[in-house]
Amino acid sequence: MDLKKYLQEKRAVVDEALEAFLPEAESPAVDVIKAMRYSLFAGGKRLRPILCMAGADTAGGEERAVLPVACALELIHTYSLIHDDLPVMDDDDLRRGKPTSHKVFGEAVALLAGDGLLTEAFRLMSATEPVGRVTPQAIIRVMGLIGDAAGYRGMVGGQVVDIQSEGTRVSPELVRFIHTRKTGALITASVTSGAILGGGDPDQVAAITAYGEGIGLAFQISDDILDIEGDSATMGKGVGGDTQRGKATYPSVHGLPKAREMALEAVDGALEAIKIFDDRADPLRHIAKYIIERKK
Amino acid sequence: MDLKKYLQEKRAVVDEALEAFLPEAESPAVDVIKAMRYSLFAGGKRLRPILCMAGADTAGGEERAVLPVACALELIHTYSLIHDDLPVMDDDDLRRGKPTSHKVFGEAVALLAGDGLLTEAFRLMSATEPVGRVTPQAIIRVMGLIGDAAGYRGMVGGQVVDIQSEGTRVSPELVRFIHTRKTGALITASVTSGAILGGGDPDQVAAITAYGEGIGLAFQISDDILDIEGDSATMGKGVGGDTQRGKATYPSVHGLPKAREMALEAVDGALEAIKIFDDRADPLRHIAKYIIERKK
Repeated sequence: MDLKKYLQEKRAVVDEALEAFLPEAESPAVDVIKAMRYSLFAGGKRLRPILCMAGADTAGGEERAVLPVACALELIHTYSLIHDDLPVMDDDDLRRGKPTSHKVFGEAVALLAGDGLLTEAFRLMSATEPVGRVTPQAIIRVMGLIGDAAGYRGMVGGQVVDIQSEGTRVSPELVRFIHTRKTGALITASVTSGAILGGGDPDQVAAITAYGEGIGLAFQISDDILDIEGDSATMGKGVGGDTQRGKATYPSVHGLPKAREMALEAVDGALEAIKIFDDRADPLRHIAKYIIERKK
Repeated sequence: MDLKKYLQEKRAVVDEALEAFLPEAESPAVDVIKAMRYSLFAGGKRLRPILCMAGADTAGGEERAVLPVACALELIHTYSLIHDDLPVMDDDDLRRGKPTSHKVFGEAVALLAGDGLLTEAFRLMSATEPVGRVTPQAIIRVMGLIGDAAGYRGMVGGQVVDIQSEGTRVSPELVRFIHTRKTGALITASVTSGAILGGGDPDQVAAITAYGEGIGLAFQISDDILDIEGDSATMGKGVGGDTQRGKATYPSVHGLPKAREMALEAVDGALEAIKIFDDRADPLRHIAKYIIERKK
């Protein structure tokens, strides 16, 4: 299959749905809506929504049926970037080649735009139509799963430890704690929620979850490597920031060759986990390889 | 009925449930859990959870069955206070007589504690047991309703307009926009979600929603009045802050006597709306009066 074409097509589907779910609006609160849309339409790869759709398809469900949840995952990802970039956190001026939210809208509106995106994500999930293989029970389960992955047991927990360990010597166990939560948890939840809404049986959901854990880890390791070796112009943001800040990363803890090897192993594990599926899982297979080959 | 005793009893039920839902935990992310708990157990009145429980009871349901949603409302309220107090927002040092979150934990952890509380609120709602009068459909509906009330169409929207109108001349329409969203929306959602989960029929849910709108407005007006006339020691925070910041308030737009009258009218409207109920609605009736008589 042509992965580039696949990703382009799915990305267009997601962008169209996001536009419909979060349109421009007349309101005294127009600035927060503008700020939410500014970051949401700043050129993201839509990896999490695409993983959700591909997970649903692999489990035998309908991609279109999971669009509210797929888009909600992108809202959550976007909120986390806005809050991450704030001066009290990573203090970044650029994201995807554009000024960060607080640079454009000020810190108060950027903070509230993040809060608005996070809240709207759950509202949007609740608007999923319970038709076909999508049951009300599955919608509730997925909302819990995503809440878990994004919250203090997941992304928020990883984030706080990441910030607190800046400039300290970090053990391999702690860097794994940070990475599985900060990035891995939401990536895993994306593909798992697709599988659940797609009506996958417990074995299928477990296999897809194991796949998600593998690519989630590989994604974060490759992010760390790109921060060292990547090209600033291609990535649309500064590189070398992790090293400057003394961030806990796989290369800093394990060295670059070992980190590369660990990313490859994680992808192999992901591919192994989804062996039980026929060619419906081909998009997931190609995405796994893309994750460690990407340049941004 | 003895409202003081009723509120004390219900508050104890809520506090016990909150303790069970968000216990202390061993984790590298322990600081964010500490910060979440610090603000959650800082002496809140638990008004929103109690309204949710009273709404369920009035509609014929079980108070205990709605506890996850009731507690989630307190998590959302608490998150909004933490973010509100941050230096980029209202920059408050004291809340309920204690140093605010960022004063104790620093701005980064306070920001993440707010994010963690908001996210955990939705995870907790998804853990509501669908038994008795509580259906999966009702749980999903309530999560959407609360997401709407807390998000950019509700609380976040009111917050952004509130911040942006500081020091400007504000029309009566705009102060109403701010107040109905910033405070009113979540109060209304609290009592309505109880009514829905309690199995109320559409007329009952509509009556309880109208009640919520009335007391939500009265609550915010009385908050504005307390900021002018309240006693700093009783309230556990500074007073006069609204005036200093040039905030849009009912007294500043309408004058104090007219604002008082509007709060009374809003309470009368709330009481009128729930006339269809027998004495099961007595707690709601007493709470409506308490809202404009309270000293903090």
